[in-house]
Amino acid sequence: MKYPQGIKARQKPKSNDKVSYGQRGMTLEKDIDKTNQYYLDTKKAVIHKKPTPVQIVNVDYPSRNKAKITEAYFKVPSTSDYNGIYKGKYIDFEAKETRNKTRFPFINIHAHQVEHMRACHNTGGIVFLIIKFTVYDEVFLYPFEHFVKHWDNFMADGRKSIPYEDIKNESILLPIKYNPRYDYLAALEEFYSEME
Amino acid sequence: MKYPQGIKARQKPKSNDKVSYGQRGMTLEKDIDKTNQYYLDTKKAVIHKKPTPVQIVNVDYPSRNKAKITEAYFKVPSTSDYNGIYKGKYIDFEAKETRNKTRFPFINIHAHQVEHMRACHNTGGIVFLIIKFTVYDEVFLYPFEHFVKHWDNFMADGRKSIPYEDIKNESILLPIKYNPRYDYLAALEEFYSEME
Repeated sequence: MKYPQGIKARQKPKSNDKVSYGQRGMTLEKDIDKTNQYYLDTKKAVIHKKPTPVQIVNVDYPSRNKAKITEAYFKVPSTSDYNGIYKGKYIDFEAKETRNKTRFPFINIHAHQVEHMRACHNTGGIVFLIIKFTVYDEVFLYPFEHFVKHWDNFMADGRKSIPYEDIKNESILLPIKYNPRYDYLAALEEFYSEME
Repeated sequence: MKYPQGIKARQKPKSNDKVSYGQRGMTLEKDIDKTNQYYLDTKKAVIHKKPTPVQIVNVDYPSRNKAKITEAYFKVPSTSDYNGIYKGKYIDFEAKETRNKTRFPFINIHAHQVEHMRACHNTGGIVFLIIKFTVYDEVFLYPFEHFVKHWDNFMADGRKSIPYEDIKNESILLPIKYNPRYDYLAALEEFYSEME
């Protein structure tokens, strides 16, 4: 497996699909950050990744001006990772990558995040997922409207993943360019006719 | 000074206006969190406080399932603290309180935050500040359009604060109720005619 752009190979997780917070999905995340910076620089949109939610337990003040956090824990996020504004409209999305070849497992999506996305969708927001299949180097913009049908089935009958073929059929494949890396706003324009 | 709702008195900061992150503006923040929860529960809007941005330097893994952050530092926020969606529109605001009686000092507002708010405003978002004068127990919704004139003067000629009277004249005073605590969306409706 090749790691472009000088990204170091990730440590193999100990057992199953779970990967620790710090290592998870860094390549996709950096590419989306670059894309968002491009949108910001060109005044096209203002979209940011939210900070990782952390429960701070202890802070030391070794000097007046520098507080040092000495004990803290990762919290389960209650919203999705990215949000912002495009043409006055609210944009909300989550980005995930998987090494799986045949399906996207729900393992790294939290129920709170999905319910947050559902609430945003119901309030009139543009909500989607960006899903990368690393083995194929394919990145999909997957509208929440389609994703949530699979999620609700998962909640109802326990099916723990979405088949790759379904995602492919229900998404827009994002072309990979230099800058913006993944022009997901252009893909959005294809999907949502109300955005003139 | 009375502390309603069982909020403990804050430790007095050591010297000047600066208050450490953990203590700053907790009362206002909790009241806004309650208001946002009310909006969420009543499906009126989806608005959240962003997590405090933290630079994580070291993480221990004492057991398989619990990562413990042992060294981290507060980062200067590059966006405002609150954002979300109301009637399909993007909402973005910052909340600050001051004990000052005659003016609102810019001391706790970062230039990056103001430029973020400016970008959101220019992209069509609804942007404002919620400013509390604790001495008067008055909370104002202060539209960014007005705030930014004072900020730009500050950048140009160094005037470090906004007079209380100006804020009073250019804001909507938020009535304090039990629930929602501060109905800032109702105040927004007064200001922005395009939100039918």
